Amino acid sequence: MSSKKIGSQSIAYANPPRISSWASIVGPMEGEGPFGAEFDWVMEDYLFGEKSYDEAEGKMLREALRLAARKQSLDDRAIEVVLAGDFLSQSKASNYAGRDLSVPFLGIYGACTTLAEGLILGGMIMDGGFYSQVAVGAVSHYHTAERQFRLPIELGTVKPASAQWPVTGAGALVLRQEPGEPRIQAATIGKVVESDQADINDLGSAVAPAAADTLITHFQDLGREPGYYDIIVTGDLGKLGSALMEELCISAGYHLGDKYTDCGVIIYDKQQNMLAGGRGCGSSAAMVCGPYLNRIADGKIKRFLLVGTGAMIVHQGGPIPGIAHAIAIEAG
Amino acid sequence: MSSKKIGSQSIAYANPPRISSWASIVGPMEGEGPFGAEFDWVMEDYLFGEKSYDEAEGKMLREALRLAARKQSLDDRAIEVVLAGDFLSQSKASNYAGRDLSVPFLGIYGACTTLAEGLILGGMIMDGGFYSQVAVGAVSHYHTAERQFRLPIELGTVKPASAQWPVTGAGALVLRQEPGEPRIQAATIGKVVESDQADINDLGSAVAPAAADTLITHFQDLGREPGYYDIIVTGDLGKLGSALMEELCISAGYHLGDKYTDCGVIIYDKQQNMLAGGRGCGSSAAMVCGPYLNRIADGKIKRFLLVGTGAMIVHQGGPIPGIAHAIAIEAG
Repeated sequence: MSSKKIGSQSIAYANPPRISSWASIVGPMEGEGPFGAEFDWVMEDYLFGEKSYDEAEGKMLREALRLAARKQSLDDRAIEVVLAGDFLSQSKASNYAGRDLSVPFLGIYGACTTLAEGLILGGMIMDGGFYSQVAVGAVSHYHTAERQFRLPIELGTVKPASAQWPVTGAGALVLRQEPGEPRIQAATIGKVVESDQADINDLGSAVAPAAADTLITHFQDLGREPGYYDIIVTGDLGKLGSALMEELCISAGYHLGDKYTDCGVIIYDKQQNMLAGGRGCGSSAAMVCGPYLNRIADGKIKRFLLVGTGAMIVHQGGPIPGIAHAIAIEAG
Repeated sequence: MSSKKIGSQSIAYANPPRISSWASIVGPMEGEGPFGAEFDWVMEDYLFGEKSYDEAEGKMLREALRLAARKQSLDDRAIEVVLAGDFLSQSKASNYAGRDLSVPFLGIYGACTTLAEGLILGGMIMDGGFYSQVAVGAVSHYHTAERQFRLPIELGTVKPASAQWPVTGAGALVLRQEPGEPRIQAATIGKVVESDQADINDLGSAVAPAAADTLITHFQDLGREPGYYDIIVTGDLGKLGSALMEELCISAGYHLGDKYTDCGVIIYDKQQNMLAGGRGCGSSAAMVCGPYLNRIADGKIKRFLLVGTGAMIVHQGGPIPGIAHAIAIEAG
């Protein structure tokens, strides 16, 4: 099979790049969740030894990238190029990380789809023969996200049950051609889809139509059914958004059933009462670059489909466009 | 030659993707500049028929992408994937354009390097065999840039002579394998470089060290001298930044001489009194996707080197990191 476009929006990798190492760093709340013991590093507090939350977020991404490199005894300077992003204005956290790492740096902006977008692009530039080790990373932080997108935390505004909690989490991975490691097999690049949902306290439902659009297109382009995968996960639709996405898939004839879940829903325990679940770049980044890749490497999951989900323009009073990118990862 | 990494930060394309069409849209001030007649569309006013400046900026990018596609009789839906960005919070203008075009969309964030970054990545995914037509675009708008990065326009704050004027401009191009058209030949991906310059009224000087770093690395990686190129242009260093970059290159033994210029310096006439020149994603995007590609297609320029330049974190009171990416374009 040669590298190529398949159907309307999908691609297949000819020389499937391998995910040879990965690392995750999460905040205190995520550390208390059901997967707490499976992340590499749980922060004791939100400042993470820095003077500002922005710098803390930059450090999270930088250290996740370094950890991922060092797990295979790579000096982080050995990384040939980094693809990374966050959803702050000016991608500030990623730029701090890029400055500290001092390696060739390509910034990406995909709202909460960042890890999926980076994996798709990183996989293509590896497959194209340009590089032999590419790093990908994404990060979000509760305090910076609340400041940028919602209300000052100091106000103590009560969130409705439909709202989602910004995940403090970073995930990074290194792509190399290492036989036996999990491989990127195919991907579907999403379109920006505008929903009629204008409630910033229910972003999951706003992004659900984009997620369903990409997932249905993925099945159609590749001639696959949900049964092809062992697990299908969305990044951060939360409880309401993931339920809506499942319904939209059922309407199109695709029953996801028990194999479907959402990183934002499972990253916290029910007892933590995190409303409709987590959201942010860090939701899928930490879950994929921790619990999920561990299970794929262990052979517990053979065929894994990540659907990165993002709200593209979050503002008061207008419809919220979303986007989703899907990437299929298979056990080595 | 196969696609590969060269030296520390550069790549060469094995199947050099061709730039088969391009289009540019600029604001009223840029239309009055020396290249005014060479842009495809000069806006009569800053709202461009929309209700807000953000929407106007989204429309500029959307229409530039459409124009570039239609110049080769392509329906814009025939574009297989778009790589685009701007420097607004949440890449809002690009997301508006992505929503309206409804094609697979990958957002990039490279501050004012966006067009160069998009060309580099777009070229790699074409060369890798994934796509046969990829569109790349970048945009900036005077009013949205001033609101996000500087002072409210209504205040009428006097700018010092070192300040640069945000360019209202969009540029877009379509990559295909069309023999005879300008081709992307090699590229150098920059690192985030922090200068000791902390004056947001002289961003060009803050980014000059990053630009010099990438340019010098480009020469070293590829074993080239400035004389290899007919023209070397930076994106938006302005008068002070470009002079500083030239000095830094001379210190490293590279005399750029007359073949070097900066898009931000030449986009306006001296009589327009635009302080130290223009800046923003739109500076290089409009100049490359207008006057420069026209001259390369006409054979007036054979070997062209674009050095996209960007200030990565613009804020009050701290050092400003910059980045630059270089891409070599040759006549077909």
